[in-house]
Formats: sequence, C-alpha cells, structure tokens
Amino acid sequence: MALIVQKYGGTSVGSPERIKAVAERVKRWKDKGNDVVVVVSAMSGETNRLTALMNDVNPEGSCREKDVILATGEQVTIGLLSMALTGMDCPAISYTGTQVKILTDNAYSKARIKEIDSNPINEDLAEGKVVVVAGFQGVDDDGNITTLGRGGSDTTAVALAVALEADECQIYTDVDGVYTTDPRVVPEASHIPSLALEEMLEMASQGSKVLQIRAVEFAYKYNMPIRVLSSFDDDENAKSTLVTREEEVMEKVMVRGVAFNRDEAQLTISGVSDQPGVAVKILGPISDANIEVDMIVQNIGSDGSTDFTFTVHRNDYDQAKKILNQTGAELGARSCSGDDRIAKISIVGVGMRSHAGVASEMFKALADEGINIRMISTSEIKVSVVIDEKYLELATRTLHDAFDMA
Amino acid sequence: MALIVQKYGGTSVGSPERIKAVAERVKRWKDKGNDVVVVVSAMSGETNRLTALMNDVNPEGSCREKDVILATGEQVTIGLLSMALTGMDCPAISYTGTQVKILTDNAYSKARIKEIDSNPINEDLAEGKVVVVAGFQGVDDDGNITTLGRGGSDTTAVALAVALEADECQIYTDVDGVYTTDPRVVPEASHIPSLALEEMLEMASQGSKVLQIRAVEFAYKYNMPIRVLSSFDDDENAKSTLVTREEEVMEKVMVRGVAFNRDEAQLTISGVSDQPGVAVKILGPISDANIEVDMIVQNIGSDGSTDFTFTVHRNDYDQAKKILNQTGAELGARSCSGDDRIAKISIVGVGMRSHAGVASEMFKALADEGINIRMISTSEIKVSVVIDEKYLELATRTLHDAFDMA
Repeated sequence: MALIVQKYGGTSVGSPERIKAVAERVKRWKDKGNDVVVVVSAMSGETNRLTALMNDVNPEGSCREKDVILATGEQVTIGLLSMALTGMDCPAISYTGTQVKILTDNAYSKARIKEIDSNPINEDLAEGKVVVVAGFQGVDDDGNITTLGRGGSDTTAVALAVALEADECQIYTDVDGVYTTDPRVVPEASHIPSLALEEMLEMASQGSKVLQIRAVEFAYKYNMPIRVLSSFDDDENAKSTLVTREEEVMEKVMVRGVAFNRDEAQLTISGVSDQPGVAVKILGPISDANIEVDMIVQNIGSDGSTDFTFTVHRNDYDQAKKILNQTGAELGARSCSGDDRIAKISIVGVGMRSHAGVASEMFKALADEGINIRMISTSEIKVSVVIDEKYLELATRTLHDAFDMA
Repeated sequence: MALIVQKYGGTSVGSPERIKAVAERVKRWKDKGNDVVVVVSAMSGETNRLTALMNDVNPEGSCREKDVILATGEQVTIGLLSMALTGMDCPAISYTGTQVKILTDNAYSKARIKEIDSNPINEDLAEGKVVVVAGFQGVDDDGNITTLGRGGSDTTAVALAVALEADECQIYTDVDGVYTTDPRVVPEASHIPSLALEEMLEMASQGSKVLQIRAVEFAYKYNMPIRVLSSFDDDENAKSTLVTREEEVMEKVMVRGVAFNRDEAQLTISGVSDQPGVAVKILGPISDANIEVDMIVQNIGSDGSTDFTFTVHRNDYDQAKKILNQTGAELGARSCSGDDRIAKISIVGVGMRSHAGVASEMFKALADEGINIRMISTSEIKVSVVIDEKYLELATRTLHDAFDMA
C-alpha cells in the first residue's frame, strides 16, 4: 500500500466522459489498496473561454481579479471528478486551493507555494476517501485567491506529494513519458523509461514541455519521484517515464536528450565600459520590470569595453528592448541590438559529468551542417546554444543522430 | 451621501456588454458620492451549463460538490465586474462568499446565512472602492462552500445591506418594479411605486416572482428598505418600487395586488377520527420527507370525523401522495385524494386590516363568474383561495377589476 498523488491535465479532464475515465483509473489505484490524492487542471478550453470573457470586459484588468476568475476552472473540475468518483461508490471529497489550504505569496498570476496544511487531507485519507485538489491555485495570507501561472497544476501535485510524504507523484498527460527529443521534429525519437531529476530539470528548462520546470525543481529539492504517464492508455503495462534522483537511475548515458525552445529572444548591449557592477546596471532594470532572464554571456573586447548578451522570453522582448535602450543611453553604450527570431537548443545528460569533449562534438556536428552558433552556455550536465530559428529542426535532427539517440 | 447595496441578477450580467453597462450604472451612483456594494448572480445560462455538466457526470452527486461547482458562476461575474469597473477608473475589489465572509449553516444547496463580517467591506469602502460580492453563496464553519438556493442572490444583498447598515438595498431585475398583478395575464396591471414590506412578503409568498421571499423576510425582520428597479432602463427618472415598513407607505389601499401561483397541488385525507394530535400524525411524515406544506384547512364532519386538506409544491405531489396513502391506512381514513391541476390566487393589502368585508367581496366576484372555490385561507392582510387551474387567468382578471386596480 502506497500514498500516491496523481495529476491530470486539461485534456485528460476535457469532457464529462474523460472525467469519468479518470475516475475509473483513480478507483483502480484506490481498489489496489493505495491512498490516492488527485490534482486536476481546468477542463481544456475553459481557460480560453474565461480569458476571452476577461478580454471582452477589460483586457487591462487587475491580476487579482484575473486569478479570481481563472481559479473557477479547476474548481469546476474538482467538483465534477468528486461526483464521478462517488457515483462509482468511491468516496471522495474536493478542495479548492483556499480550502486545503495551499498558502502562497501574493504574486498574482505567478504565485509561489509557501506552505501546505496536510492535516485535513490526511484525515480524509484515513477515512478511506479519495481527495481531489484544485491545481494551479492557492491563497495568500490575506485570503486572496492566487494562481501559480502556467503549468501550475504540476507544481501543486509535486508540492502536495512532498507535504504528504507520498511515495510517488504521477503526472498524467497526453504522452506516455519523456522522449529523447520532440517526436514531431524527429520521428525516430526514443522513449526514456527512467532518467535523473537533474536531467529532467535541464530538459524542462530547455523547453521540453512534458513537465513544468517549477514542478521538477520542487521534486528535485525534496527528492520526490515523478512518474509521467499517458491518461489515454489504459493498458496495465503502458509505458511511462520515472524521474528519480541520479543514483537511482540505472543506465547513465552521455547525452539523454535534445531539448529546444523557440520562446526566447536575444538582446545585446555593446561597448560598455567594463567595470564592477556593470552586469547589475544592465540586468537590474530588466528584473525590476519582472522580466526573467535566461542565458547570459559577457565578452571583454580588446578596447577594455565589454559586450553583454542575454535572452528573455519572446513575449517580453519589446519591453526589454525599450528598457535596454534606456540603460544603454545612461551607460554610454556603443549600441543596443536584439533578435527575436532565435532558438535555443540543448543536449542534456548526467553522463556528461564523466565524459570530456561532449561540447566540442556538439559544435562540430552543427558546424558540419553549416549552422552558426550565436551564444553558448554550459552546465555540468548540459550544453546550450542559440542559433537562428530557421535551423532549429535541422539542428535537432543533427544532434539526435550525432549522439546516437534513435 | 448614502451607502447603497445593489443586486444584479443573471440577465443583467448576461454578457460582457451587459456587465459593462452594469459597471457604468454602478459608477454613476458612486460618482454621486455614494458608497456602493454590488451583489451579482452568475451570468445567465451559466448555471444551466454547469448543471448539464454535473448531470453528465453523475446526476446523483453530493450536494457539497454541486455547491462547489455552482459557486463558480458568481465567482466569474464578480471578477469580470470588478475588472469592468477598474477599466472605467472606478476602483473595485471582488469577494467570494468565503472571502467576505458570509457564514452559513451547512445545509448545502439551501444554506441559511448566520453572520456576515462587515469589517473588510467597510475598510474597502473607506478607501473609496466599490465592493463586488458574489451572491447566492457562503461558507460554513468548516470552510465548506455552500449555496443559498434559488433566488439566493437577493438574500445575500439584503443580508449585506443589513450587516452594513445600508440606507437602501436596490434589486435590479428585468422589470421596473412590482405590479398589481402579472401584466402577462392582465395587461391593465398598474405599477406600484411603493408598498409595505408586509404586502411584499405576502405577494412573494403567493407567487409574485419579482423578489424572493427569503430576501423579503430578511428585509422585513431587519426593517431594510428594498427598491426594485430595471437594469434595462437607463433613464434617471425610471420607475421603481420602494418596499418599506408599513408606516412609511404613503397611500394605503385596501387591496394592493393580486398574486397567483400554479406550482401547488392539493391533497385531502377524509374521515379521520378527530382527536388531539391528528394534524401532527398527518403532516409529521410529510415534513420528515422534507416536503414543505403551504395551506392547511381542517373541517369537522357531522359524524365526529374530520377532513384534512393541504397543499404542497407540485414537484412534491407524487411523493406526498404516497406518504399520505400510507398515513391514511394507518389512521383508518375513509379516503385519500389529491389534485395537481389547481391554482392558488390571493389578494393582498395592508388596508384590509381596517376594512371589513374584503373576503366576501372577493368570493362574490368569483362566484359571479361561476368559479368554484376549493380552499380558503386568510391572514390579516391577505385572502387566498384555491381554484381549478383552468380558471386562473379569468379569476385574476376578475379580481383585478373588482378591486379597481387598473
């Protein structure tokens, strides 16, 4: 007997029929003697419907009110799933983020979880109930409704699993696990039965959409095993990907996967006098505007001045460009430039720790195809490069081949 | 400057455009220097949409989960209206029933308000904000979401007005007030500019659908003036009906209005031995089944036995009949019978207190048209009769004429 937290995304609960299918699956796990806590997203389409209403009323509305409205999506799903379960003689009870309660900070639309009260859930589990919790939402110290931002339901699931000391956190999606790269780009991509949390973390942060990075960070920090499964495959022996700590992963390959991301844009400020604190002067105003910076590269020029390049989310490009131009004027920079038609591509694997030369092998494979590299960033288990967006598919296939992942 | 609580029903907030129209109206009241608290229902159609989802998943689902789901309807509206208001530079903040908080008992789907915490609202009003509150919903002592049942938003508005010691509670609907009777039945029905809470209470309980009876009861108990207005009429001098305590009503007419109700059914048990406690034996099992009884009439027959007739909601007729047949067998009754093709018709007016002969005038008017009376029930300010349903329209027009209400 185990305590399992399961998370079902919007597509998995997209209709009354799908909700009943989820209820049947939950009941099977429960009938095997497990305690089950279920985290659900809004039914697919619901968030878009609510967003359209908000845009019709006032596109510039406050984030507090947007969260009040968006949080209703999951609230409907928890009620429906609980009703479906009790209809199958499986006792169940629903909780909103406010009720659990999932305490967050008050950063509306991207709140962070501070604390979860696991007592009421444990009591319900002890009474034999399945507990259904609204993902994506929480409540701040003053009782305001907050949402965790995109993919927040994954984070809710992992955070609940940690708080409840669950044995496993199962994330049900529309795919049956993690692949060496996106099969839509490389049809030969292979299924990965198990990988390290560190690898998953890098894959997610590099754009692999199977799991949300904040959820993986949470799991990594608290060492919570995550299993990725398909909610569309009812086979008992269906494929899945288990994500655990590094030492528990059986097979350590050099490169586990190729991840890519076309959501970024690149910004460069050139000819700034290189003195202590220049990075803060450049990035401070960007982060003050709540814009997240991903890759950062700095070069020192021959004349003692420095060139500084970084990437931001493509949606933040225009605003970041405006801020950078202002900073450039203040610092007397030679020029500020940018490009939002770029892509980031990364190879990831814990095996890199013990293998030298992976990066140069990557650069060579790309050079052989005539693909120019604009930025490079490395970590112990990852090498990322920024290239022109038009080369993205070619580069992905090239690297997938070069490292024998088919 | 006054403190005004306004309530807008589902049709008044049925689309983004309607919500913006409501926001403009609220802002006009606010700009005149009033403090404004707004109570809203779910957008029209939303409750039906959610109910259809619930029926698809499990028509027998628990009331707790139904309330969790239904409460999302108002939650969306409060967010949208707040966004519409801030979009017009009118600061606003939304509250769910849980947040206010509107404390209720835990009778899911028909909870009763126990207490409202007015402090947070008063603080927001002092800061110049419009406060937008979800109608129809509350929270019990354990943090479970509850709903107040049909028409609950009216009750929320009046209860809030009482808690905040508001000057007036304005109920916006799709009609511009109370009429002497339903204009769809009697086109000559007259608009009533002001009437007594007692009269409104009787009108509502007799089937007039303009205000919900629980809301009127609440207003009556706490002496809160209610004004009924149309949300579709933007004229400054639009008609409305003010409902206040009797002594404040200027013109006291004998009969204020004719109300009717075709939602009832009649049940009769005949030839029961007339002994103390027989009424309890007959009605106890009915109320144990949670069926509400409206009119009750008892006659003593010449043989010392008694006939007992009462009315219930038409939806409860079959169940009540079954229970009555069982009671009849236990009590050795001569017969049990019933009829669900009846209608109740009532004349209401505080003027009746000081006028004798109103009832006989009513009976004569009906008799002149050949309408047979099946049951009679009177109060100080009301006379109700039960007639065959087929005579309903004729009887309504007859009484409207007889008491010169055109």
